Amino acid sequence: MAQSIVLFELTATEALQLLSNGTITVEEYARSLLGRIEERGDTVKAWAYLDPDLVLSEARRLDQIPLEQRGPLHGVPVGIKDVMDTKDMPTEYGSPIFKGHRPSCDASSVAILRAAGALIFGKTTTTEFTVTNSGPETTNPHDPNRTPGGSSCGSAAAVADLQVPLSLGVQTGGSVIRPASYTGTFAMKPSHNAISPDGQTTFSISFDTIGFFARSVEDLGLIADIYSIKDDDPPEDIPLKEVSVALVKTPFWSKAGEGTIAAVEQASTILRSHGVTVEEVSLPPDIDNEQSLARLQKVITSGEARVAFLRVYRQDKAKLAPQVRRLVENFNNFSHKERLEALDRYGSIRSKVDEIAAKYTVILTPSAVDEAPVGLDDMGSPIFNTLWTGLHMPVVNLPAFKGEHGMPIGVSLVAGRFRDQHLLNVAKVLAEPLMAEGGWRTRPDLVANDNAVAGPGPDDKAGEDHKL
Amino acid sequence: MAQSIVLFELTATEALQLLSNGTITVEEYARSLLGRIEERGDTVKAWAYLDPDLVLSEARRLDQIPLEQRGPLHGVPVGIKDVMDTKDMPTEYGSPIFKGHRPSCDASSVAILRAAGALIFGKTTTTEFTVTNSGPETTNPHDPNRTPGGSSCGSAAAVADLQVPLSLGVQTGGSVIRPASYTGTFAMKPSHNAISPDGQTTFSISFDTIGFFARSVEDLGLIADIYSIKDDDPPEDIPLKEVSVALVKTPFWSKAGEGTIAAVEQASTILRSHGVTVEEVSLPPDIDNEQSLARLQKVITSGEARVAFLRVYRQDKAKLAPQVRRLVENFNNFSHKERLEALDRYGSIRSKVDEIAAKYTVILTPSAVDEAPVGLDDMGSPIFNTLWTGLHMPVVNLPAFKGEHGMPIGVSLVAGRFRDQHLLNVAKVLAEPLMAEGGWRTRPDLVANDNAVAGPGPDDKAGEDHKL
Repeated sequence: MAQSIVLFELTATEALQLLSNGTITVEEYARSLLGRIEERGDTVKAWAYLDPDLVLSEARRLDQIPLEQRGPLHGVPVGIKDVMDTKDMPTEYGSPIFKGHRPSCDASSVAILRAAGALIFGKTTTTEFTVTNSGPETTNPHDPNRTPGGSSCGSAAAVADLQVPLSLGVQTGGSVIRPASYTGTFAMKPSHNAISPDGQTTFSISFDTIGFFARSVEDLGLIADIYSIKDDDPPEDIPLKEVSVALVKTPFWSKAGEGTIAAVEQASTILRSHGVTVEEVSLPPDIDNEQSLARLQKVITSGEARVAFLRVYRQDKAKLAPQVRRLVENFNNFSHKERLEALDRYGSIRSKVDEIAAKYTVILTPSAVDEAPVGLDDMGSPIFNTLWTGLHMPVVNLPAFKGEHGMPIGVSLVAGRFRDQHLLNVAKVLAEPLMAEGGWRTRPDLVANDNAVAGPGPDDKAGEDHKL
Repeated sequence: MAQSIVLFELTATEALQLLSNGTITVEEYARSLLGRIEERGDTVKAWAYLDPDLVLSEARRLDQIPLEQRGPLHGVPVGIKDVMDTKDMPTEYGSPIFKGHRPSCDASSVAILRAAGALIFGKTTTTEFTVTNSGPETTNPHDPNRTPGGSSCGSAAAVADLQVPLSLGVQTGGSVIRPASYTGTFAMKPSHNAISPDGQTTFSISFDTIGFFARSVEDLGLIADIYSIKDDDPPEDIPLKEVSVALVKTPFWSKAGEGTIAAVEQASTILRSHGVTVEEVSLPPDIDNEQSLARLQKVITSGEARVAFLRVYRQDKAKLAPQVRRLVENFNNFSHKERLEALDRYGSIRSKVDEIAAKYTVILTPSAVDEAPVGLDDMGSPIFNTLWTGLHMPVVNLPAFKGEHGMPIGVSLVAGRFRDQHLLNVAKVLAEPLMAEGGWRTRPDLVANDNAVAGPGPDDKAGEDHKL
């Protein structure tokens, strides 16, 4: 193994190549990541559960599998948001009700990774049932005084901090794309129901969407392939100059902070300078209103949450966060009638926005309000994300820009429903100039920040069966 | 305890009264049902798993709970379709892949029953992942040479045969209402997502709906209450004479057999004779076409099944039924585009059909093509059910009629989305004349059939930990 390669810095695609040609073993790779976690774990606190012994024994098991029997993700470590069931680790959904709970079966999303040979590394932190907006002590790897964003905080932080190359999250509003923006990671929220949600916490059945974090667009494509996320027609390669971008500022644009305004402008400028057409486009009038759109979303997700959380409410409501309890109690007094109208309205909007998307190569839109907020008690707002989640459209976050405090700011690329492969193709083409000229450098910045962070020294916990 | 009461014959509401006033214990009630199962189990074969020891120890545990701590369903036995996870019994989803699988957590639907004090009795048979149209050896309690219908075969048969008063099923097409019609049970498929599907097999995320079987409309209301299925406004009592019925024969009427045609005519005649208005009503033109409507449904459910079953396909496709395998392989070559159009179209239809429903007190429509087919290899067609499942409207089966072979035939009552309580109210009012004059007598017929059936004698298995 070449001396100069730092294994924990590799993307999954890079690591796969070294694993498949025998340059490294799964165990060596896992040990490098565990070392990184030993060094950084107490600062970032990305893990709800991580058992180094289990990781290493799984790694050794994978190393024993003959080459010809290996799956397409053989030996690649993946962090799993702790709302997805894992058969060999506890799953607590961020809730005291499920302290130490051990499911006997993997969630669908996890089982499919495992069948592809992935090394299920550990469980990443989450807010309670993905509902609350604080809770985990997870910090932003680029500034431990800032939130990594929620609710997939641990999955975003672990990938941003080079503790795993890949992780799974789930988004009802903006729980994947927003923390990706805050932590400077690439992330994808594919089309709704592109990945089965079986075996994970439900919040809102018509909005919940599994997504994933990585450190390159290529790696996002790797995961999409594992889940057989395919367009109707194989996507064509599109030269940069032929790309047309619809800039959709959304009805929530007045909420955008300076960092996001600058990032979107910078993205447009960079793309135009490369010959890309960028045209500002409005949404259909029936959803181009801030208040009414936000209410539609709230009415749907709250109404569905009421059903989803009735079970834990009946089991042990005293142990539920007030935010969850209020959902079940229908604190806002939303009616079925209003919810059904909202559902039908969203249903009628989806094809219209697909049509808009089809007129351009891709939609460009904000990923978050601004840089990650200071403090861990406010995990930020999903206001720029929920729309696309509800529209069921695939979204990719490109972590290309930097805010006034040197923190990452992403932009979202969006395509029509089930044009996920097309979106990944375009994201790859656009990532080149945007990442090169946008100002954010994931790795160097991270290292610089590492030095600045007064983290604890290495401890002697490695090898024990403990939670980090 | 009065000598004349045969406990296993009671409805849940009747049993609850005796349990709550201390006339009977949960254990006595459970023993009566176990006796019935011992007598009839080998003929009906309704159970995928039933452990009499577990049932009795649970019953004794419930008997120990002080009166003031008892839930609203205290001691009432419920059969659970074996696609819903149970923490104390195996859950096999009708699949050899999950032979002996033991989930560590109840499905939401089961946990809520358990929290209400229900006695989770056993697991009822199902077709493989609810997909195939044969498999279980479960027979129709009214004629062991006929199917009870699928996929919730065991739940329908167990309630019809007085082996439990209540059971849960799940319906993607007609897996609850059709077996209810075939077995002469009352059943309800509530509005879509009125009960959380967490912890059960997914087939089609936008069609799957949990339903339940009982032996009276009152009992259906009992379960609906447990799940907090409530209308926006408390439903009003409607006198029979003020009821207006929209008779919707559906675009599939040409498929109706003589028994169903007669049942629908008879229902109309009986209701009219009691002063009820019955008016034949067509569906909106865009869904009033047999071929196109059937295709819409197939495109949606197949496309969603492809995602839902990818996991088992990747884990062990050799053990999957060809019908399940073909879904994942997209045997019909349906595109995302067609599926999204179908989803959007269904979305746009729902409010239109709600509007039609709102003009009448209730919709009357067939529950099945005819009597239960002969043989166990064809579990019948869901053609009269899938429409309402996809429309997300609540449906109640009233087992009021009899076909030419003396088998039961039900009719469906349907209301607008989330008018479940209203529907139950109307069903109760309409059940009176229909059940009195329709010709089907559940209990007497059943006893008559019992005598006709050459079942095996009592065996000595009771008390053993075994599967029936």
